[in-house]
This record gives sequence, structure tokens and C-alpha cells, in this order.
Amino acid sequence: MSQVVTVRRRALEASEERAQQLRRAFAESGTLVVNIISSPGSGKTTLLEATVTRLAAGHRCAVIEGDLATERDADRIRALGVPAHQILTGGACHLDARQIEAALGVTPLLPADLLFIENVGNLICPTTYDLGEDFKVAVLSVAEGDDKPFKYPAIFARAAITIISKIDLLPYLPFNLSVVEEQLRALNPGGVILRVSAATGVGLDTWCDLLTERLGKKRLASAPV
Amino acid sequence: MSQVVTVRRRALEASEERAQQLRRAFAESGTLVVNIISSPGSGKTTLLEATVTRLAAGHRCAVIEGDLATERDADRIRALGVPAHQILTGGACHLDARQIEAALGVTPLLPADLLFIENVGNLICPTTYDLGEDFKVAVLSVAEGDDKPFKYPAIFARAAITIISKIDLLPYLPFNLSVVEEQLRALNPGGVILRVSAATGVGLDTWCDLLTERLGKKRLASAPV
Repeated sequence: MSQVVTVRRRALEASEERAQQLRRAFAESGTLVVNIISSPGSGKTTLLEATVTRLAAGHRCAVIEGDLATERDADRIRALGVPAHQILTGGACHLDARQIEAALGVTPLLPADLLFIENVGNLICPTTYDLGEDFKVAVLSVAEGDDKPFKYPAIFARAAITIISKIDLLPYLPFNLSVVEEQLRALNPGGVILRVSAATGVGLDTWCDLLTERLGKKRLASAPV
Repeated sequence: MSQVVTVRRRALEASEERAQQLRRAFAESGTLVVNIISSPGSGKTTLLEATVTRLAAGHRCAVIEGDLATERDADRIRALGVPAHQILTGGACHLDARQIEAALGVTPLLPADLLFIENVGNLICPTTYDLGEDFKVAVLSVAEGDDKPFKYPAIFARAAITIISKIDLLPYLPFNLSVVEEQLRALNPGGVILRVSAATGVGLDTWCDLLTERLGKKRLASAPV
């Protein structure tokens, strides 16, 4: 078994090195990169549609979509005039740095101010993969139930921002916002929690302001003295 | 790499052999075993609560719950007087046959007429793992969107039954039932599709009748001539 472990460790190291190369490339191009992770159907693509619609006037946006099958999500983003690349994983349950590097080689997404990576719909496996992003964003729809942070702790502990999505559905669901926010604060005291509805627009200004603020900070940090 | 492939193949063969052993044990005890797979928050546990509440009067029910963390789901089933075992996977994204075997050794769940295995919330990874079940059931909540079968085709192609859950939420969501059912029929022409709301009770009788009918058929098939 030790040979298996060695091979796995080498693969992991190669993947981490590739993620660091991507991070350097994104620093050079001044691109803020956001890795968005959630269950299937939490509303990642709808959130991205609303986000790029708001930001595209003042910023160059680009999107990488990850799915097992169908070009559907990339098509939705392209329909808004924003460049998008669809990664089809076949059966694989998460994106990795190699796929991001390959996507950037195929579709001219850079230079961009903001690059959004919508990961495969999966609250577990994408958690530990570094894609060279600035930070991870977890999305949790109120339709998924208020017990989820403690049941899937790893992603909510690592995400710099958790978006509680579809809050327009709250009147029809047994979902206690304060219970969820308490779990999120316990798992991730430094994390930001946003309540968002892409359907009504609630929370979108705060989310977009946060993105442009973080882009500004990244540019400032990498500016020559 | 060939040694890695060999070790992996051996592990897979061992897992498949273990699943077949479980299948023989379930045939001997006359237990119908249902492996329930879905995204986090599609309503698997709520469906199971409603199911065992209806079936427990005439049938011995038992439940195995799979989660990354928390005993919460098993506690919900036990509160109904039905024996349940909680498997905590730590970070692992699916259940395997070894864990089912171990669970049966720890908690006296057999003999039972119906054993429900609620897999880890994940629409991808549990798909290819045989737990010795009679069949897989996929659950898709209407809150997850009507593009999901074609985006996650493997599970919907393999599930003997797909339950479209939370249909009481349809008035508040852009979800086209006939679009989803068309995708499901394309992926899985022999599969059964049920529309269910555990909140209102719609579809639960049909679901429970289907389970007892399949239990009857299994018993008949294994009865001595």
C-alpha cells in the first residue's frame, strides 16, 4: 500500500503546485478568483447570472462552469454576453487545478477583473481542492434545511463567505435563519454570512460590493510600491 | 501506476464481494433493502419519517443513516420508535458495503421487513457503490431546479424509483414537472417516477404501496417451492 500512498501524495503535490502557479498568474493579471461550492440546485448559476449582470458594466467578468454533463450553465452565462467555459467532468465529483489551467488555455477568459468558478454541485468533494482561487464561497439554499452547516462542516468552515440563498422562499419553509447563522459562526468565526435572493434582488448589492472591495484590496496589495 | 490500479481493482472486488454477501443475508432474512440517494436537503429524512410512520404498524422497519457528522438523522428516526444506526463518515462522500456490514454488527436492525439506507447527501459519489440493496431510490426536490436529471445523469439512470419531492412548493418555484419527467424517462425508460410531498402527504400512499408490493415479490421469489 505504501506505493499507492506515495503515488497519491505525488499527485496531490503536483495539483497543489499547479494551484500555486494559477494563483501567481491570477495575481499578475489582477484577477479576483472566486470558487463557488454548494449542493446541486442551491442557485449558484442564478446567483452568477444576477452577479455578472450587475458587475459587467464596470468590470471584466468571466466564468468557468463545472458539471458532470450538459453545456447548459455556460450557455446561460454566455447569453448575458459574458465569456464562459464549460468543464464537463464526466463522472468526476469536483474540479481540480489541472482542469482550470486547461480551460484557460482553450477559452480566452483572461485578462479579467473577476473570474467566477462554479464548481460541480457537491457539498463535500470540492472542499479540499485548491483551484488557485482567492477564496471559496459556500451557497446554502433555505430549501435545504437548517441543519446543514453542522452536517457538512468542512465546507462551511473553509468558505470565506457563506451565501444563504433563495430567502424569498422562507415563508413556505421550516427554516430557522438564526439557527443556521449560529452554526456558521461556530464553524467559522471569521466568515461572512450573506442573506440573498436572486429572484427578488435582496442582498445582491452587498454581495457585489463585497466582491469589488476584495478586488480593490487585491490590486492594492499587488501594486508596485 | 499499474500497482495502484491493481490495488484499486482488488479493493473494488472486495467491496463487490461484500455487497453480494449482504445481498444473500438480506435474502435469507427476507428484508427489502432500499438505498436512498440525493443532494443534501432534498428531504430524505423527512420522507423516511413519514414512510416508517405509515409502515411500522404492519412491518418491521429499520434505518441506517449516513452523514459526515451529527447523530441528528438517526435520532429523528429513533424518536418514532424505529431502530436506527448512524454511520458517521468523517469526510467521506458515500457509504460502502463494509460500513453497512459493520453497522449491522453494532445495532440489532435485523430481522426486519424493510431496511432503509439513507446515503450521504451527494448526487454523484454514492451512485456506483453497491450496498447489497434491492434497488436505489433517487430523490430530487423541486427546489433544486428542473435541469438536474440531465446534469447528474448517472444516478437517475440507475435508480429504480425517482421521487420528485417537496411538490407542495411548486407554486413558488420555476419548476416544470413534465420537463423533468421527460428527462427521467429518456435516462431510465423502465424507472418509476413518483410525485411526493411529505409535508402534505401527497404521493405517500403510492410510495408505501410500491414498497410493500416489492417486499411481497421478493418474499415470493425466495420462498421454497
